[in-house]
Amino acid sequence: MNPHEPYDQYKTKMQKIADVKYASAVLQWDQETYLPPKGNDTRGRQLATLSEMAHQLFTEASTGNLLQELASKDGLEDKQQRNVQRSLEDFEKSKKLSPAFVRTMSEAVNKSFHAWIQARKDNAFAGFEQPLDALIQFKKQEADLLGYEQHPYNALMNDYDKGLTVEIVDRVFADLKPQLSALLEKIKNKKQVDNAFLHQHFNKDQQWLFGIEILKQMHFDFEAGRQDISEHPFTINFNSNDVRITTRIDENDFGNMTWSCLHEGGHALYEQGLPSEEYGLPLSEYCSLSIHESQSRLWENGVGRGMAFWKHNYALLNQFFPGQFKAIEIEQFYKGINKVQPSLIRTEADELTYHFHVMIRYDIEKMLIEGSIKTKDIPAYWNEHYEKYLGIKVPDDKSGCLQDVHWSHGSFGYFATYSLGSLYAAQLYAAICRQHPQLEKELAAGNNRNLLAWLQQQIYRHGRYYTSEELCSRATGETLNSKYFMDYAGKKYNDIYAV
Amino acid sequence: MNPHEPYDQYKTKMQKIADVKYASAVLQWDQETYLPPKGNDTRGRQLATLSEMAHQLFTEASTGNLLQELASKDGLEDKQQRNVQRSLEDFEKSKKLSPAFVRTMSEAVNKSFHAWIQARKDNAFAGFEQPLDALIQFKKQEADLLGYEQHPYNALMNDYDKGLTVEIVDRVFADLKPQLSALLEKIKNKKQVDNAFLHQHFNKDQQWLFGIEILKQMHFDFEAGRQDISEHPFTINFNSNDVRITTRIDENDFGNMTWSCLHEGGHALYEQGLPSEEYGLPLSEYCSLSIHESQSRLWENGVGRGMAFWKHNYALLNQFFPGQFKAIEIEQFYKGINKVQPSLIRTEADELTYHFHVMIRYDIEKMLIEGSIKTKDIPAYWNEHYEKYLGIKVPDDKSGCLQDVHWSHGSFGYFATYSLGSLYAAQLYAAICRQHPQLEKELAAGNNRNLLAWLQQQIYRHGRYYTSEELCSRATGETLNSKYFMDYAGKKYNDIYAV
Repeated sequence: MNPHEPYDQYKTKMQKIADVKYASAVLQWDQETYLPPKGNDTRGRQLATLSEMAHQLFTEASTGNLLQELASKDGLEDKQQRNVQRSLEDFEKSKKLSPAFVRTMSEAVNKSFHAWIQARKDNAFAGFEQPLDALIQFKKQEADLLGYEQHPYNALMNDYDKGLTVEIVDRVFADLKPQLSALLEKIKNKKQVDNAFLHQHFNKDQQWLFGIEILKQMHFDFEAGRQDISEHPFTINFNSNDVRITTRIDENDFGNMTWSCLHEGGHALYEQGLPSEEYGLPLSEYCSLSIHESQSRLWENGVGRGMAFWKHNYALLNQFFPGQFKAIEIEQFYKGINKVQPSLIRTEADELTYHFHVMIRYDIEKMLIEGSIKTKDIPAYWNEHYEKYLGIKVPDDKSGCLQDVHWSHGSFGYFATYSLGSLYAAQLYAAICRQHPQLEKELAAGNNRNLLAWLQQQIYRHGRYYTSEELCSRATGETLNSKYFMDYAGKKYNDIYAV
Repeated sequence: MNPHEPYDQYKTKMQKIADVKYASAVLQWDQETYLPPKGNDTRGRQLATLSEMAHQLFTEASTGNLLQELASKDGLEDKQQRNVQRSLEDFEKSKKLSPAFVRTMSEAVNKSFHAWIQARKDNAFAGFEQPLDALIQFKKQEADLLGYEQHPYNALMNDYDKGLTVEIVDRVFADLKPQLSALLEKIKNKKQVDNAFLHQHFNKDQQWLFGIEILKQMHFDFEAGRQDISEHPFTINFNSNDVRITTRIDENDFGNMTWSCLHEGGHALYEQGLPSEEYGLPLSEYCSLSIHESQSRLWENGVGRGMAFWKHNYALLNQFFPGQFKAIEIEQFYKGINKVQPSLIRTEADELTYHFHVMIRYDIEKMLIEGSIKTKDIPAYWNEHYEKYLGIKVPDDKSGCLQDVHWSHGSFGYFATYSLGSLYAAQLYAAICRQHPQLEKELAAGNNRNLLAWLQQQIYRHGRYYTSEELCSRATGETLNSKYFMDYAGKKYNDIYAV
């Protein structure tokens, strides 16, 4: 470190900001895991203070001057240049929203979040409509302030996946939707598989230990992370040497904990694999939410709902639960854990129908932001399309358009990354298998070293160097498309349903 | 809140600083309980950043101006005036140590801490001597910078107990020492009691549950706090509605966990009882470390090693551990848990010989700071006085003058508060019993409501309003003296040893 070198000054500043941000993340983690109930109010104000301080440090003029100086400077190494470029993008973006605008938005979020809680209690969208509409008007303003080409929704999606556009998502979804519908139609006409064995009694402590065993197999580094219990599973990191995941355990549902360990474990491997020497700088951060989700889906579904994984683990499963799977052949187990069944709740959906849940939300958001539907029309649009795509009637708002927290938080532009994550996962997995044709044999033998090495090489180590599209092209030879997911789904559901 | 009112500005500023400080405390708690090993390095820098930011916020000129303005302002309420006065004292004190001095000191602490770790491994004071001596020179400078009357050591003790002086401690110890020696001499000539039953096997989970049961009896509010496991038990708070304690469990030592729950529980009740409406301001903080220690000792010893408490809990104990105490009468149990036996390690000492451990450390510190002994003379002085007061030979430095972490941290002026805490505890307990002559009967019936109400009234609610001496005088009618501890000890050891 040389305090007179602008790059070192920049690094020092960014690391200071990171210290404050990650301290805030520790407080959030604690809030979801161990905080005693009465501590909640003060925790709220402690978080607000830290977040304000981090924002203030980053947006002050001296940061901008330093970044401008570095951006026009010769002699920086390639990675240093990329760090500066990303920080400058972040800086310019954050300057577009005035503190007053951010504060007013945050008040609108607060109102809409509380209205959402109440509307869910009342099981009626009506009580949520007005505050949600106010928030949507702010999101439109935000899009205008941030600026965009083509479509205002692009400005919002960029928060979660830099470079993502309506054009890309529309193209991918237009391609995907008819193929999914056709496959779903075929499956509906076949004999349904049975997964009742997943809903026996499974002892809590045994489930916990089985989950830890799976995380160890994944090479989750327990010296650089831990798992705890929370109401909703999540992954959070305080640097790549301290990555925390959580799970929840339902004693009457074996799937809940198992696939949350695989899902969050996939997120966590990504975070543990990010370059720790770039602490505080953009290259220590993940590429995008779509790529993050690809890492969780790859492990949850590509690996964790695959036959190879269970060939290795079915005997282990029977050791942990000596009674429950006695009468269940591994083929029957495999079918059960991949059962396709249109349902109301996104987070409980199978991997095929999941995409319809996302597409409906994406369409609604896009139309709200472009102004082609009104906030009050959400429930009608929602219910109509659940019937159209999934063939199910939505009985009430709670199991319909009030089910997700995202809108009440003002998280518009987020949902598409869930589907894209699945598609990226399939495309990446296909690429790995092309380069390592023995991969599934290795997995069936409990060896995932080649898989991990490939992910490290192609994804983890790059941090935010590339955009999602660039990362995908480098790793798979082409940009995102739905072919690989449809190949994967076609093969899987042909095995299971003979479609 | 009125942002133009200076008192409200002051409050807002102090609360912001508190948010940062308590965020830092959450990170420390996590470090001692759940942090994965590889996360330690980055946690260190995150803590350093937060602590620097809190210090900077407090010491900036605007804080001083605001405090000066408020101090000369009419119309503040009494508690407001006291808050301002205490903050001004803190501010003026913190301005006396320049950032450069604080940084150099912190480097010296770092060196001496690592040297201490190594010296313990080598079991030789020699490797610690030089860095410790350097640190002591800084502590002398610190005393000079802070300023003092009479004795430089007063300046250092003030950090832990405002108003505490060599004169006070010398007087109290001079009074206490011969009485303790005489009592110890008598006990040595009596038949020793047996406490081998404390060292059977005690199942970990059962110990944990028994500890939780005791905390519930104490009315530790689990909605506003929690207990976890750490290597060394401690209490930490993030506001009075979130107070965390930790314990450790040794399956071969029943005492370890039980009396740590009572000790930390006592600290925690104090923190939970501090006025939450004063968040961020001095009146929300504890009076002094001596008074804090009085609260832990009162529960650990006054209550938790008393016959009344066990009259209520001995049956419960036998429910949790159905085998271990079968052959042990409650009188025998009471004697065993109060066994007096001179020993080498302070933290394992009984409540009588404990004071000698403290007095030796106090004398050494005082003499080091006044320059009447040299750092290299510590082991000889230590060993000589362990033999003189406790009649035991110190076999090596590790069980001698290298046993405590305090000096390596630069915590000079701290030790006396341990003994004073015990004396305050006895004096307070005697005052409660005078006002509630039925107290021990109530405790024997499992009723500690009057005890808690008294502590709330006399201690908790005042925060930092009074000094230790003022608080003690108000609560007991006289300043600190050794009479009540000696009465308590005399009675207890007469019961046990017939002295």
